[in-house]
Amino acid sequence: MTPSRLDLTFQALADPTRRAMVERLGRGPASVSELAQPFAMSLPAVVQHLQLLEASGLVRSEKVGRVRTCRMEPAALSLAEQWIDQRRLDWERRLDRLGEHLKQFPEGEPT
Amino acid sequence: MTPSRLDLTFQALADPTRRAMVERLGRGPASVSELAQPFAMSLPAVVQHLQLLEASGLVRSEKVGRVRTCRMEPAALSLAEQWIDQRRLDWERRLDRLGEHLKQFPEGEPT
Repeated sequence: MTPSRLDLTFQALADPTRRAMVERLGRGPASVSELAQPFAMSLPAVVQHLQLLEASGLVRSEKVGRVRTCRMEPAALSLAEQWIDQRRLDWERRLDRLGEHLKQFPEGEPT
Repeated sequence: MTPSRLDLTFQALADPTRRAMVERLGRGPASVSELAQPFAMSLPAVVQHLQLLEASGLVRSEKVGRVRTCRMEPAALSLAEQWIDQRRLDWERRLDRLGEHLKQFPEGEPT
């Protein structure tokens, strides 16, 4: 089965280096070497992480001259956020229903 | 490196079957066989997905007699949500700063 956009996004976020890259890019665009700088990691390893981030749509990059500049793409993050929000809504609705149900039993345990 | 709670949570959410299980549990507890029911999948495969969900903290399960009942744990989901929210905040702050910057150049391109 081809992984969906949501699969790829959560997969991309499942690694601390990739999350740190997204954190950095959330504050503004950066070149590949700027992104690599905080990590004790080979450039090919950094590029591999970036490829996963690009495949997920969380990051896009553009090469101008010899410099590749990376940017965050908030749309992919929104997709993940919406999925999580929906679970929270389901959960809250369920608690509301439970609350309504328990109101029928003002004292003691429901039977 | 030991995977962090956030690594495990995003990893757990990176699979459509596991997301479907969390969606189901968001609407209320379910037994393992109820969870397995919508999937054309062996029970061991379902149990393996559940183990990843439990390792991440998204789901907990409890065996009473012969029935193992699974529940969603909203706290793990909140952790992932907070991480994503923080990225969106960074991004919005950055857009605000850009907006402030561009106000200094009411016409034409900033130099």
